[in-house]
Amino acid sequence: MDFIKSQTVGAKFQPSLTSSSHSPYRFLSSTTVADSPSSTMAPPVTVNSINPKVIECEYAVRGEIVILPQKLQEEIKAKPAAHPFEEILYCNIGNPQSLGQQPITFFREVLALCDHPSLLDRSETHVLFSKDSIQRAWKILDQIPGRATGAYSHSQGVKGLRDAIAAGIEARDGFPADPNDIFLTDGASPAVHMMMQLLIRSENDGILCPIPQYPLYSASIALHGGTLVPYYLDEATGWDLEVSELKKQLEAAKSKGIDVRALVLAEENQMEIVKFCKEEGLVLLADEVYQENVYVPEKKFHSFKKVSRSMGYGEKDIHLVSFQSVSKGYYGECGKRGGYMEITGFGADVREHIYKLASVNLCSNISGQILASLVMSPPKVGDESFELYSAERDGILSSLARRAKTLEDAFNKLEGVTCNKAEGAMYLFPRINLPAKAIKAAGEARTAPDAFYCRRLLTETGIVFVPGSGFGQVPGTWHFRCTILPQEEKIPAVVTRLTDFHKLFMNEFRE
Amino acid sequence: MDFIKSQTVGAKFQPSLTSSSHSPYRFLSSTTVADSPSSTMAPPVTVNSINPKVIECEYAVRGEIVILPQKLQEEIKAKPAAHPFEEILYCNIGNPQSLGQQPITFFREVLALCDHPSLLDRSETHVLFSKDSIQRAWKILDQIPGRATGAYSHSQGVKGLRDAIAAGIEARDGFPADPNDIFLTDGASPAVHMMMQLLIRSENDGILCPIPQYPLYSASIALHGGTLVPYYLDEATGWDLEVSELKKQLEAAKSKGIDVRALVLAEENQMEIVKFCKEEGLVLLADEVYQENVYVPEKKFHSFKKVSRSMGYGEKDIHLVSFQSVSKGYYGECGKRGGYMEITGFGADVREHIYKLASVNLCSNISGQILASLVMSPPKVGDESFELYSAERDGILSSLARRAKTLEDAFNKLEGVTCNKAEGAMYLFPRINLPAKAIKAAGEARTAPDAFYCRRLLTETGIVFVPGSGFGQVPGTWHFRCTILPQEEKIPAVVTRLTDFHKLFMNEFRE
Repeated sequence: MDFIKSQTVGAKFQPSLTSSSHSPYRFLSSTTVADSPSSTMAPPVTVNSINPKVIECEYAVRGEIVILPQKLQEEIKAKPAAHPFEEILYCNIGNPQSLGQQPITFFREVLALCDHPSLLDRSETHVLFSKDSIQRAWKILDQIPGRATGAYSHSQGVKGLRDAIAAGIEARDGFPADPNDIFLTDGASPAVHMMMQLLIRSENDGILCPIPQYPLYSASIALHGGTLVPYYLDEATGWDLEVSELKKQLEAAKSKGIDVRALVLAEENQMEIVKFCKEEGLVLLADEVYQENVYVPEKKFHSFKKVSRSMGYGEKDIHLVSFQSVSKGYYGECGKRGGYMEITGFGADVREHIYKLASVNLCSNISGQILASLVMSPPKVGDESFELYSAERDGILSSLARRAKTLEDAFNKLEGVTCNKAEGAMYLFPRINLPAKAIKAAGEARTAPDAFYCRRLLTETGIVFVPGSGFGQVPGTWHFRCTILPQEEKIPAVVTRLTDFHKLFMNEFRE
Repeated sequence: MDFIKSQTVGAKFQPSLTSSSHSPYRFLSSTTVADSPSSTMAPPVTVNSINPKVIECEYAVRGEIVILPQKLQEEIKAKPAAHPFEEILYCNIGNPQSLGQQPITFFREVLALCDHPSLLDRSETHVLFSKDSIQRAWKILDQIPGRATGAYSHSQGVKGLRDAIAAGIEARDGFPADPNDIFLTDGASPAVHMMMQLLIRSENDGILCPIPQYPLYSASIALHGGTLVPYYLDEATGWDLEVSELKKQLEAAKSKGIDVRALVLAEENQMEIVKFCKEEGLVLLADEVYQENVYVPEKKFHSFKKVSRSMGYGEKDIHLVSFQSVSKGYYGECGKRGGYMEITGFGADVREHIYKLASVNLCSNISGQILASLVMSPPKVGDESFELYSAERDGILSSLARRAKTLEDAFNKLEGVTCNKAEGAMYLFPRINLPAKAIKAAGEARTAPDAFYCRRLLTETGIVFVPGSGFGQVPGTWHFRCTILPQEEKIPAVVTRLTDFHKLFMNEFRE
């Protein structure tokens, strides 16, 4: 980061050290060693002296669930027979390209050209790159002041890229979008943190979150010292949301003195929700990162902005924040850390403070910004890349749909397991009725029953699921989260290994 | 981000909406509009109801100082004669490539190849790219699991890239570096926020910061609800740091019940500082992002880790965090948002929590990670790119040195202005003794005297400086910050316009 004093880089340090020797010995010899480094006092920082909010914060999709599989994989690499399986099957994180999903060619062509613009002056480039990727790269470079992809941008992101995103939102919703409402972020997570930082003043501020929820929300609320006000999604109706449940939880929170500020959710009986948020004065935090992940023909994505506007609610009627990310969809570009939030309904003075929060990290990364503009304005009919682009996109989405169906069917065939239909996103969240003996064994092993099951599954089959307890579940019910992302040729292995393991597990703990 | 329920994407919304029409009218017609959107209640979020820490947070290098010049530029674009100057001369932000500095070719070649790896299979690529950039791209891709540059990495960053960085640190310092101590971050700013989040529990926790300071520190401390404990750098001795001043401010803070946790600084009489931090049990937060920006032959960068180890202090003796960024140095790749922090001396349990903080944002962007590894392991003698690389690097650094000297001399020629020698970094922080009449005029204009001067300078010459008040200064003294980054051909314009303006300004307010 900037640092404003002109530094004297160790000048006072040792005049005799201005030689550029790298040898520690010569270095030491020319150095008078300070008083013996006896560690008399306690270290300044211990777990007892760090921010307790950091301690409280939990993040179920990382940590042991990631570290243990890595350990196992290293053991297999070192000794192939170390475990009863030759490879780890990752079904735990929404990280498609880590499992072999290929990036969309057009997007990567444009990124490469923007990273190394001098390619655009070379004739060979026209052999290597599609015509429209070259045109798009020129267009983007012209939108970036000085064509400097290596410069900090406006804190909200490059204006021209926000224009492209706003145009994409308008085309999607049929309602206007203002580039000045768009904040480009390094993925959607920083956007969520920014909003939590803005809304949470103390533990008396509450955020309504669905259970099961994605742990980012609980983690962010904990880090910012707020209170997560849970509402349960109804598994019996395919994880539907009853507004009566929302009202119940809101009233319960209010009676405890909690000032509920916002509601987090993905699409669900949207008109009722919008009305509810307006009436209760809640900020609607719409997680819309799965807008492209729709696998059933009778379903279609409707943004909360489109729904609110179509209900006649304008800017002044509802505070609405929509999160989008390049990590999901058919693109799955998690490592690029691109995304945006569209903020509508906030006053100019509040907006200034949101802008300030964005500017404290200067700006999001430019490749991520470019990619966010590309996913919102992909190749169109007639563009040279369109055929390849749509083939790649449709190939990914139809394959995800097939994988979701296969896994869903496999889960529903397992004794004591029920799994809802996967209509979108990248995950299944099957429920498992564990035998009392298994729950007892888990207790003795000091783990939650679902964690106990997942750990056994991992160590015996190499399949990585995330225990439902990390996402929240109705007390007394147990689940695990399984992504639909292993490549299609791996799915049969997941199914057979899981099925065999489950039979043995259930028999082992049968009463 | 992930969201674990399988979404029914608006299914409950309107069965008749499963057509993929984008027309708001058809959409509206098939929609029963909810109760009239009368805004009866106050909006849920106003400046009075957002997190007061966000309000307190100030960030002097962004905001009006960025917005007003943009406005002027647009006015000039619309009407060339709108102002007494044809172009804005930005001397306000450390953003080299926005001012025409060209990126290092080798770095961009590698980034482009990693962004679009299928280029590596094409023969034309060997015409377009240097041999070693191709080799390096292969090496990096092999270090990334599945060669997936579009996948989330380990939360600390790709292991192989951290290996390269650790090796670079070892070569630099002559002391070992552990890849597991490296946390790759989106620039250095998120790393600073992470440490503040870890260390600050309440307003009773203090962080010792130099004055003048970079506003990121004050902003981050404010956002996390801590107390900035200032210590003044001595302008008379070229911004030196007296440990007696540190002790004085530390004692003063303690007497006010402040628990001082850490000391922020760049290199300065380093051995004394290390000893002081060990004795007082302070975490040493070493801002080492300018390690490559050294313009005087008799000076050489020494990392605080090198210094501590050379003093005989080991892991257990001192908590040390070193921040590095791809935004500074000769590379100036601000838009790539790459950087890392090296964390030594913390217990494993505390480290777990730092890891968790890193994982809440999943990982930093992969291009930034790759770039961080490249700046710590640039081309070596014998590599095809070495000649071009070192020519580009030396060209940039020697030009920065010339610009620094020219501006420094120009400032020292101005009536009532004194400027220290620029030996490193990218900035000058000249002091200006303003006439009483100017200070009075500033008061009437309700601005700080230095802000008054900078605003007049901007509107009359198009030169953008940042008022010293944004960085802190000894009460009663006034400064402004000027970067040395305008391209060399622009420097004469900066000097003449500034000199002419200053004469008129001083005459206008002469007693």
